[in-house]
Amino acid sequence: MMRTDATHKLLERKRERGLTFEAIAKALGRHKVWVTAAIMGQATMSAEEAQKTVAFLGLGADVAAALQEIPSKGSVGQTVPVDPLIYRFHEITQVYGTTIKAIIHEMFGDGIMSAIDFELDIQKKEDPKGDRVVITMNGKFLPYKKW
Amino acid sequence: MMRTDATHKLLERKRERGLTFEAIAKALGRHKVWVTAAIMGQATMSAEEAQKTVAFLGLGADVAAALQEIPSKGSVGQTVPVDPLIYRFHEITQVYGTTIKAIIHEMFGDGIMSAIDFELDIQKKEDPKGDRVVITMNGKFLPYKKW
Amino acid sequence: MMRTDATHKLLERKRERGLTFEAIAKALGRHKVWVTAAIMGQATMSAEEAQKTVAFLGLGADVAAALQEIPSKGSVGQTVPVDPLIYRFHEITQVYGTTIKAIIHEMFGDGIMSAIDFELDIQKKEDPKGDRVVITMNGKFLPYKKW
Amino acid sequence: MMRTDATHKLLERKRERGLTFEAIAKALGRHKVWVTAAIMGQATMSAEEAQKTVAFLGLGADVAAALQEIPSKGSVGQTVPVDPLIYRFHEITQVYGTTIKAIIHEMFGDGIMSAIDFELDIQKKEDPKGDRVVITMNGKFLPYKKW
Amino acid sequence: MMRTDATHKLLERKRERGLTFEAIAKALGRHKVWVTAAIMGQATMSAEEAQKTVAFLGLGADVAAALQEIPSKGSVGQTVPVDPLIYRFHEITQVYGTTIKAIIHEMFGDGIMSAIDFELDIQKKEDPKGDRVVITMNGKFLPYKKW
Amino acid sequence: MMRTDATHKLLERKRERGLTFEAIAKALGRHKVWVTAAIMGQATMSAEEAQKTVAFLGLGADVAAALQEIPSKGSVGQTVPVDPLIYRFHEITQVYGTTIKAIIHEMFGDGIMSAIDFELDIQKKEDPKGDRVVITMNGKFLPYKKW
Amino acid sequence: MMRTDATHKLLERKRERGLTFEAIAKALGRHKVWVTAAIMGQATMSAEEAQKTVAFLGLGADVAAALQEIPSKGSVGQTVPVDPLIYRFHEITQVYGTTIKAIIHEMFGDGIMSAIDFELDIQKKEDPKGDRVVITMNGKFLPYKKW
Amino acid sequence: MMRTDATHKLLERKRERGLTFEAIAKALGRHKVWVTAAIMGQATMSAEEAQKTVAFLGLGADVAAALQEIPSKGSVGQTVPVDPLIYRFHEITQVYGTTIKAIIHEMFGDGIMSAIDFELDIQKKEDPKGDRVVITMNGKFLPYKKW
Amino acid sequence: MMRTDATHKLLERKRERGLTFEAIAKALGRHKVWVTAAIMGQATMSAEEAQKTVAFLGLGADVAAALQEIPSKGSVGQTVPVDPLIYRFHEITQVYGTTIKAIIHEMFGDGIMSAIDFELDIQKKEDPKGDRVVITMNGKFLPYKKW
Amino acid sequence: MMRTDATHKLLERKRERGLTFEAIAKALGRHKVWVTAAIMGQATMSAEEAQKTVAFLGLGADVAAALQEIPSKGSVGQTVPVDPLIYRFHEITQVYGTTIKAIIHEMFGDGIMSAIDFELDIQKKEDPKGDRVVITMNGKFLPYKKW
Repeated sequence: MMRTDATHKLLERKRERGLTFEAIAKALGRHKVWVTAAIMGQATMSAEEAQKTVAFLGLGADVAAALQEIPSKGSVGQTVPVDPLIYRFHEITQVYGTTIKAIIHEMFGDGIMSAIDFELDIQKKEDPKGDRVVITMNGKFLPYKKW
Repeated sequence: MMRTDATHKLLERKRERGLTFEAIAKALGRHKVWVTAAIMGQATMSAEEAQKTVAFLGLGADVAAALQEIPSKGSVGQTVPVDPLIYRFHEITQVYGTTIKAIIHEMFGDGIMSAIDFELDIQKKEDPKGDRVVITMNGKFLPYKKW
Repeated sequence: MMRTDATHKLLERKRERGLTFEAIAKALGRHKVWVTAAIMGQATMSAEEAQKTVAFLGLGADVAAALQEIPSKGSVGQTVPVDPLIYRFHEITQVYGTTIKAIIHEMFGDGIMSAIDFELDIQKKEDPKGDRVVITMNGKFLPYKKW
Repeated sequence: MMRTDATHKLLERKRERGLTFEAIAKALGRHKVWVTAAIMGQATMSAEEAQKTVAFLGLGADVAAALQEIPSKGSVGQTVPVDPLIYRFHEITQVYGTTIKAIIHEMFGDGIMSAIDFELDIQKKEDPKGDRVVITMNGKFLPYKKW
Repeated sequence: MMRTDATHKLLERKRERGLTFEAIAKALGRHKVWVTAAIMGQATMSAEEAQKTVAFLGLGADVAAALQEIPSKGSVGQTVPVDPLIYRFHEITQVYGTTIKAIIHEMFGDGIMSAIDFELDIQKKEDPKGDRVVITMNGKFLPYKKW
Repeated sequence: MMRTDATHKLLERKRERGLTFEAIAKALGRHKVWVTAAIMGQATMSAEEAQKTVAFLGLGADVAAALQEIPSKGSVGQTVPVDPLIYRFHEITQVYGTTIKAIIHEMFGDGIMSAIDFELDIQKKEDPKGDRVVITMNGKFLPYKKW
Repeated sequence: MMRTDATHKLLERKRERGLTFEAIAKALGRHKVWVTAAIMGQATMSAEEAQKTVAFLGLGADVAAALQEIPSKGSVGQTVPVDPLIYRFHEITQVYGTTIKAIIHEMFGDGIMSAIDFELDIQKKEDPKGDRVVITMNGKFLPYKKW
Repeated sequence: MMRTDATHKLLERKRERGLTFEAIAKALGRHKVWVTAAIMGQATMSAEEAQKTVAFLGLGADVAAALQEIPSKGSVGQTVPVDPLIYRFHEITQVYGTTIKAIIHEMFGDGIMSAIDFELDIQKKEDPKGDRVVITMNGKFLPYKKW
Repeated sequence: MMRTDATHKLLERKRERGLTFEAIAKALGRHKVWVTAAIMGQATMSAEEAQKTVAFLGLGADVAAALQEIPSKGSVGQTVPVDPLIYRFHEITQVYGTTIKAIIHEMFGDGIMSAIDFELDIQKKEDPKGDRVVITMNGKFLPYKKW
Repeated sequence: MMRTDATHKLLERKRERGLTFEAIAKALGRHKVWVTAAIMGQATMSAEEAQKTVAFLGLGADVAAALQEIPSKGSVGQTVPVDPLIYRFHEITQVYGTTIKAIIHEMFGDGIMSAIDFELDIQKKEDPKGDRVVITMNGKFLPYKKW
């Protein structure tokens, strides 16, 4: 079974059962962002995690096998995303990219924030003027090696 | 004076005086990320803010005027950034874009996180296994209007 | 059912029954532009709206379910549209983009017109020299936040 | 004098004198959107209009000559605009393009809205929940010719 | 029936019956270029035209219905055409584009040649040194509106 | 002297003297489209033609030399032209490309219309409903060689 | 039958029978490069040539019909070819393009080498230091027409 | 001195002295295609070759030094060349690319024709029906290594 | 059988049997990188190698035939790879490309490292601070030929 | 001083003095690949390293300051490099990308080879059949974090 077929099956079943990503994540004992990424084909589950996921959703061993395959990552399918929600993150990179670079270099020296040793959290902050999305990225600083 | 010339002058002077963005931000009484963005030509200062900035750095009225011009935004100059630090943010959008979309829709319904009514913070979290970059994005949720 | 399949089914049925978007919109009690956008897979219906739509067109619950899914937006499928009608809007952005930017900044300061808290209307204005298309875009002004 | 040099000179002088596009438009007796487009190098002035413009701004005959040259149009310089304000119009074309096409065809038949026999207006609509930008596009419907 | 399927069916039947576009056009009483464009999915037939076309070719009502649908135009499917015959027209635009612009502006002022109120004719001019293709484009001049 | 500098000088002088391309062409005894193409850097003049051109416009031997250089052709500088007048020709290729291909093949067999052994004419056809631009392309048919 | 299907069938049969392009070309009495191009969907066979080809390979009349259709040419499917063998020809154009242009203009004047009235030959030249591929392109020089 | 400046100087001097590439090549004792490539900044001269070149053209030691620098190769500056002469070579790759690949593999097995251990020759073949350009590419066959 | 179908079958069977590329390579008596490349459709097996491969994996003669076909190479399917692991190699080319060029030219003169007469090895180097990937590329230096 | 100006000055001086990158690296006590990368503007020197570099080359403090600035990395300036030496590395990524991904995942699990905690070495291996370039990349394996 192809990874994209597994994603389709997982999302379809989730819809049929009226489940949330949060509920699946709770059943699995992992953060909902990571679990969603794994379902979307962007992260790799252990055998046990895959087993729990398909058990919870009532899916078969082929889906569990697919979830353990290391996927070819990249979920958006366009260089510049067209979907407005996803585009805003492209815009943040375009507008604030040099600012983030300047600040990280000032604070840490030459290097990057890892997107691999990396966690992503999304929270809702209620606000009478309109609720706010709070996204936290936490990535290891990797200094450039000299040799 | 063109906005890019003002940016060059500001960065040159900052370097000559051995200043940090943090120091400039403190003198100005604003967050260092926003101040850096303004210096990079991505945000607009008020007359008072521009005045304080050039006074602190010992620059002229022409730079202050440029800082009050609403800039044509976009700092990266490439659709897919080549600089490794900035590229990682492009990668995060490519890999986690559909995940972020799914989670925000699950938490908030149809709409987006604003990149305008938006704040960005960058912190260093010390860690014996390697310090971590913690980036917090805080944007108003804008629900799609129906009509 | 995929969102694009639902769009195909809806358009096919509309054609078979010789209906207009306006008639569907009237049955639904919403503006015809918004209803067309929802049918085209660019907006999300409530359960009640989806129910009314499929009842009016004689379609099934699977189409209604699809209409309530938050879609991955973007209808054109090309960066520069080739269809002449759609291209003219690309041309307007290319030719008048800096003009619109200058005027909005003069009238409102630094910020943008929202494309989310946003309405679009299309009217016909009869004219003996050739009828005219009148498009009105009404979007909330979002000032850039400082922090 | 190149058209882009004339644009630079006009904008510089406008800034020095603290003028608005509206004030220049009033002096010229034309709509401020069209006058801004002409200054931005996207429309062509008559000799009289160019004369009035340079007289009002205290500029020379070379600028007046440039304003009468038919320009090579296109102000944005990127296929997908990066500036957030201009991008939102690209997004509207991407998201609502097929909707606008469907509605115009339903109302007018096969053809397009002209971007040449075309007017553009920008208004501010005050609103306690946040002022709104109202943009009106008024273009002649051009039916496809059969032969 | 999708428009592209109708095109396939029409071309297949034309081939089977050994017909020319000219013969179909004659049966329909319209110019062969326009009729070919309609078959290729680039123009819209009236009910009567579609009826005559399918009757002449012995095809069904579903093809006739498709021919009356206003198509999403654009036949080439590549920004820079690779087919050598079609590429030559791209080359003419690239090489002679600024020349055509200069001459039309000299003869007509600021405006464009319409590609909508537009006719295209293709003739063979016999020549002992090699026959010549003579293409005539006839489009309404549309002057830019001022407002 | 670079070819683009020669083009600039020629256009500047033409403007200063209030000349038309037609007048220059008449002085040279060649068609105005070809002469404009040569001035725009898309065709090569003989020594005599270049001499006559600079003599008529009062320019120097360096311009005459540049006009005799075989240029690197391509006047538009963008794959998809943004200028609305030039774009319409791109649109014609996109919309009518497969139609033109089908008709030329039906009339001539496999081969192309040359864009080298090629002439281009532009005429104004007066019309009370709006003057029309009539463009005639006349290119040798080149049959594909078999071997 | 689509042209690409015919190509698939022809290549499959060739493989099954262990034939070479050279053998097919010999049976057909034409050069192996041209015959391969026709099989690859880049050239058009006469009825007799198509007949001989399918007879030799034991294929049906539908393949013969497809071989007589004038194809939409372009075999590579990428602007910059990724296959290393094909890429080397792209590289030759990129590296030696201006050299070839300079030499052809020096030898022939302004014009091009035709890619239509054109033959291509490929030979093996044995060499103890490694055999060599010798490709000969033979195209008619087409001088730019003046008018 | 930058390599591009050296190219400019060499071409300018060649023009002033009315020399051909062939004459320069003769003075140098090398093939005119290679010498032109070196002048165009696509090949590297030895000290002696560079010396002879500048002596023949009356240029200085800085040009000779530049000719000995290994250049960053690539002369065309566009992925798809716009100049019609150079484009025809791109077209040959696009149309005949898979044919050339099939024939070379049939004759030599898996591997490529080197574009490095490679010679290029351009000849004129006189023909009463129009002279022909004959280009010969001679590159070492490099078989793919297995390991 | 298409090459991509063979790749799918091979990978599926490998997964079902829980085999590693290393195990397949051992059975075949070749290096695991080369064997993986052949399975991925980037290298060509001899009849004997293909036979051994399908025998080891229990697949049919059609897969063996496909493995002997010379493939159209290029495995990534995107100009800029999105998968983070593959992207890092693109990044290395972008960041260190000019450095590698300068060093190879300093050590070897004008020429390239062959990617055809080329071997690739991947090793794991254990390290308490985190294991390291060691990739060795070994390609023949090909000096540019002069002629 | 801009980083690119420093690079120009450093390369010019190196040329004038007939130095190699190896000699500069020796003076500096660092690996020649890293030193070349720093000179090319892709790595950041410490104050002491920059000091030694300019002292060795007889350049000023402004160059030393530039060498300590963290650069905006990316040396190639094109998505697909045109220079044949650099292109071969792009080709290796395109052809062997999925192979490298499969092998690294088999050996290490899900994660990437770092291009930051990374060393690059280039050696010459003499060989009577032609010397070989041996490139070794040594990067830390970074496993994907789960959370």
